[in-house]
Amino acid sequence: MKKTSIKDIAKLSGVSVATVSRVINDNGRFSEETRQKVLAVIKETNYQMNFSAKSLRMNKSFSVGILVPDISNYFFSSVVQQMEAILFEQGYSTIICNTGRNLDKELAYLNMLESKMVDGLIVISGADEFGFNYSNAENGIPYVCIDRQPKDKKDTIFISSNHYQGAFEATEALIHAGAKSPVIFMHSRQSSSAKERLKGFQDALKKNNIQMNPELSIFTMDLQKPDYQKNIATFVQKAKKIDGIFAINDHIAIELLNFLPTIGKKIPDDIKLIGFDDTPQCNYTVPKLSSVKQNIPEIAQITVDNLISIIKNPEQQKQITEIVPVELSLRGSI
Amino acid sequence: MKKTSIKDIAKLSGVSVATVSRVINDNGRFSEETRQKVLAVIKETNYQMNFSAKSLRMNKSFSVGILVPDISNYFFSSVVQQMEAILFEQGYSTIICNTGRNLDKELAYLNMLESKMVDGLIVISGADEFGFNYSNAENGIPYVCIDRQPKDKKDTIFISSNHYQGAFEATEALIHAGAKSPVIFMHSRQSSSAKERLKGFQDALKKNNIQMNPELSIFTMDLQKPDYQKNIATFVQKAKKIDGIFAINDHIAIELLNFLPTIGKKIPDDIKLIGFDDTPQCNYTVPKLSSVKQNIPEIAQITVDNLISIIKNPEQQKQITEIVPVELSLRGSI
Repeated sequence: MKKTSIKDIAKLSGVSVATVSRVINDNGRFSEETRQKVLAVIKETNYQMNFSAKSLRMNKSFSVGILVPDISNYFFSSVVQQMEAILFEQGYSTIICNTGRNLDKELAYLNMLESKMVDGLIVISGADEFGFNYSNAENGIPYVCIDRQPKDKKDTIFISSNHYQGAFEATEALIHAGAKSPVIFMHSRQSSSAKERLKGFQDALKKNNIQMNPELSIFTMDLQKPDYQKNIATFVQKAKKIDGIFAINDHIAIELLNFLPTIGKKIPDDIKLIGFDDTPQCNYTVPKLSSVKQNIPEIAQITVDNLISIIKNPEQQKQITEIVPVELSLRGSI
Repeated sequence: MKKTSIKDIAKLSGVSVATVSRVINDNGRFSEETRQKVLAVIKETNYQMNFSAKSLRMNKSFSVGILVPDISNYFFSSVVQQMEAILFEQGYSTIICNTGRNLDKELAYLNMLESKMVDGLIVISGADEFGFNYSNAENGIPYVCIDRQPKDKKDTIFISSNHYQGAFEATEALIHAGAKSPVIFMHSRQSSSAKERLKGFQDALKKNNIQMNPELSIFTMDLQKPDYQKNIATFVQKAKKIDGIFAINDHIAIELLNFLPTIGKKIPDDIKLIGFDDTPQCNYTVPKLSSVKQNIPEIAQITVDNLISIIKNPEQQKQITEIVPVELSLRGSI
């Protein structure tokens, strides 16, 4: 006997396959009348969902998973919220998974999302090691990456801010404001966005004929360590001429804005300072913090557009890279 | 012919029902050997998962859903992250749904989580109207509420900070610092936590024999409106004697900290100020902002403990209320 398929159910119910799927998953919009009709046909034909996730995936669940490294981070939570809003308007529910920049969690959540049969995935930069290519997911579920490309994987849709441009312009803003020996304050994570920002900083120095000495021009700080302030003080004493700092994110910049005056360095008089992310707090510090603003609405829109496009047409071209320009927000710290 | 059940599969495979469920859902820990064994038995017995979500729910999916109104809010994102970490250690994946304080979204996500067969739900305060009791979910999926109880529903596990105590102590801190006519700055959302905070403020005034005039003692502001600063200025002019402000959250407090000096009111000399939430930004304002600190680790732990307990024993007592004490963090603004 031929097994009943979801297509048969749709045909017998007089509705679309998508509607049958929505009724089965109890997700999305359909009338009570439609629901009753579909359920009656399912009962009549003794239709049972097949065990295999692959075949179920032929149906649509109208849900999308987002892997995000840290929802307490301004950029991540903003872009996730905006994507959720756009997806919801288009009829998709969003499942957010917070991976804590942890490779094990990333893999566990990929498996979980696969088992929940999401129609698509959005993966935001997290652990230094990108475990995505170890998962089965890449063979089945359409996905779009923000800020980080999987290793050794070319056939990927990749959306990112222009971190290089932001760092380059931020460093030049310090130089134009009079800084002769700007330095960069990094965190210890080796994400691709951090690498791009470092490269932008280095190229801006080079273009302006400023010598770079890795030991005196790059400081890596770890806000989790109890002695990080002592380390900053030691670094600032050693590299005596510091008169400009590009901080790789606003979190580090705001720490510096508060700490540097306590060791006798005034901002912006002694040291000019610029961060990255343009968090709302930039307007509440004294002086107000200059920063690099990512175009979050644009990133959210492009990401969702691309994802929905490959969900609807899985055979389409998947090697797409979109780099979204950033802009400087200059305030009193520079 | 008797239909094969998940129990039969477990028996034939020589593993537990939970392990079969994990293999089926490809979620959680099991060896490759176990997986092969279970899949072989499934194939042999021609076992198919039944359509009905109810029967499937007899299995465990080892996933939990969290409805959160706004992941960009410090309290919400912190408590969600901490709950996720505890749940993950106990073998559960966490599905986070951002409802944007929107009743339609809340219901849509409840349906979605039900269709994804989560084992339990955590519902965090959101829309003023609490739609939870309109859903089927309450009849099936064990859940715990943070900060807000569903209407007309007594049989609920409810975890909350002591918002009343926090507001009462914050207001008394203003009075002890010399404020003779403290006022409260509210937002327009009528959440139960906001109501508790207002009550704490009012009772502190009463206890200290300070007259309350609703028109001059309570200001409701909407940061979304373009003219909110004009409205603050008008209110501060009208209620000339304002010398202390309890802001219902740090977001409003930080706005005031920045705006009041521009209309000639110095903090803390002219007006003493305290917020609520003890966000990290409190340490970065000038002067540093006093605030009320919620015990986020405690709330996260109690919530997860209660949820896992009712997941494991659905018949247990569900009318539980746990109110977690808060504490003041006094800084330069008072």
